[in-house]
Amino acid sequence: MAASMSLPQTMKALELREYGGPLTLVEKPVPRAGPGEVLIKVAAAPINPSDLGFIAGCYGIKKRLPVVPGWEGSGTVLATGGGLMAGLRAGKRVAFMADEALDGSWAEYAVAKAKKAMPLFGSVTLEQGAMMFVNPWTAWALIDMAVREEHDAVVHTAAGGALGRMILRLGMRRSLPIIHVVRRAAQAEMLKGQGAEHVLDSSAPDFVERLQDLAACLNATIAFDPVGGEMTGQVLGAMPRGSKIVVYGSLSGQPCQVPTPQLVYERKKVEGYWTVTWAAGRSLLGLARVAYSVQKHLGDDFRTEVRTRVSLDQAAEALESYRKDMSAGKVLVVPGGEIE
Amino acid sequence: MAASMSLPQTMKALELREYGGPLTLVEKPVPRAGPGEVLIKVAAAPINPSDLGFIAGCYGIKKRLPVVPGWEGSGTVLATGGGLMAGLRAGKRVAFMADEALDGSWAEYAVAKAKKAMPLFGSVTLEQGAMMFVNPWTAWALIDMAVREEHDAVVHTAAGGALGRMILRLGMRRSLPIIHVVRRAAQAEMLKGQGAEHVLDSSAPDFVERLQDLAACLNATIAFDPVGGEMTGQVLGAMPRGSKIVVYGSLSGQPCQVPTPQLVYERKKVEGYWTVTWAAGRSLLGLARVAYSVQKHLGDDFRTEVRTRVSLDQAAEALESYRKDMSAGKVLVVPGGEIE
Repeated sequence: MAASMSLPQTMKALELREYGGPLTLVEKPVPRAGPGEVLIKVAAAPINPSDLGFIAGCYGIKKRLPVVPGWEGSGTVLATGGGLMAGLRAGKRVAFMADEALDGSWAEYAVAKAKKAMPLFGSVTLEQGAMMFVNPWTAWALIDMAVREEHDAVVHTAAGGALGRMILRLGMRRSLPIIHVVRRAAQAEMLKGQGAEHVLDSSAPDFVERLQDLAACLNATIAFDPVGGEMTGQVLGAMPRGSKIVVYGSLSGQPCQVPTPQLVYERKKVEGYWTVTWAAGRSLLGLARVAYSVQKHLGDDFRTEVRTRVSLDQAAEALESYRKDMSAGKVLVVPGGEIE
Repeated sequence: MAASMSLPQTMKALELREYGGPLTLVEKPVPRAGPGEVLIKVAAAPINPSDLGFIAGCYGIKKRLPVVPGWEGSGTVLATGGGLMAGLRAGKRVAFMADEALDGSWAEYAVAKAKKAMPLFGSVTLEQGAMMFVNPWTAWALIDMAVREEHDAVVHTAAGGALGRMILRLGMRRSLPIIHVVRRAAQAEMLKGQGAEHVLDSSAPDFVERLQDLAACLNATIAFDPVGGEMTGQVLGAMPRGSKIVVYGSLSGQPCQVPTPQLVYERKKVEGYWTVTWAAGRSLLGLARVAYSVQKHLGDDFRTEVRTRVSLDQAAEALESYRKDMSAGKVLVVPGGEIE
């Protein structure tokens, strides 16, 4: 608790005042850590699609407003509110997930539950640590699902983003063929440059035929789809009988459209995936194992290319540019101006 | 084979010449039974939604054209093409399913695989026997799925039709609460008159709220949906977390629309059901047991109300009237003019 003596009274933070509304840069009191919580000086925090969903009011969790958005970040623990686990993190560099009942990471300081703040290995930078949960855990869980359920190959839509590149690398490591579906020729070239073997451009006129041939050839019976809308039915329709598509996002903003014959005559299925539900279904030991494995490979399989680093003042503008093109690399919010 | 001596050379039949096209009344040769097949003098054959789908070219099975439609019927076996099972059916009154490679039941005579022609109990009329497979087996399989998977209650969309009434009676017999969704107030009254406790009219302004309340109250975690389109997402959206909807038809003619948050945040699933796939996954003994149980209850649980009986000459017109209102009772094609 001694460290809190040197803390300022107030901090800069981005605030959401109504769902769907703009973000406002505010000066507000530095929060205090309660029992089992830690106060973190935020080093960096990414803008993820789940943040955009949360801000729009379409995410699976709604918080009481006004609220500081930002689902994950990294930083240094300056103070704790007591408790064994919190005490073990005092003074440590950590990666953290925002709690459902607390403000998020887009601020100079943030309070996190100690169990959702994980000390970083010496080899992991605060920059990479800031992006340790949302995308890496999703990529890990999806590939794990494909392997556990013994699918021979996978289709991934919207494969050009940060998560898509993780899935590419994990697929290569596990020798699991992935059919990467992208929306632009440039994304296809980028993925091929990173070693992707099967890349299809959904804007090409023969997209469906090529997907059909490739999915049949590789026996790709599971698809991961963060797009929704017509893409869901189009991809499922091109897959072998009995295939399933796992929707995990709504980049199209449209309801998933699935032609009935696919479901009835072809025995195909539509499901959803959400890391929050997935984690709730696993043991603490299981989660610790994933956390260890993800952090160990944060420099290779789970690395994220950063496009820009912005201050809190620039974040609202950066959010817009990220929304327009999510596959051009990650935007990092750096509340301190630079990462120490 | 002796009976074939008294057979006419030609017969009246309805013929489909192109998918989506009209039916034509033709005079064509009486077919001959091959090995393992029986020749049936058709007594009656219903018009089912699966026939409409087949005629439109949207069914899961396409036959070579021209073809006689009609997926099921009843009649008397006049001749066999040899084989033990066929021999056992000689002279018998049977219910039959049309084979994928043969003409169907909308004709004066039809050839069926002996294993798809089931002798009728003495207590079962040829009229009820004509409707022994398509609807009863679907109703049996759906309720069996709900019971096996231990759902506390079921939602059924388009509950006003022949199948809906079977599901009502089966639910009552198994003490499985069913929430019946119908499209008109008159259908709701009819179902209540038959003992239905929970009936909702989807045209009512508070439909979604009432479904939500009732589904939560009864913990209805499985829905059976022959409608598709927006209905699929609307019903699934009103059900508890983790629910699944089983689509088994496309009365709306539209692709199923499911909002992504239902799949991702609510762990809901969309699947399909088709009796053909379902039967393929069961043992012969298992199927025989279902067949026995269905026929035993053909007079009560699985009975079908017949709206009209039409000759082959009137069938094309009757098809149109059935298409316009499928819930007003079954239309039976009676090739002989009357059922002997």
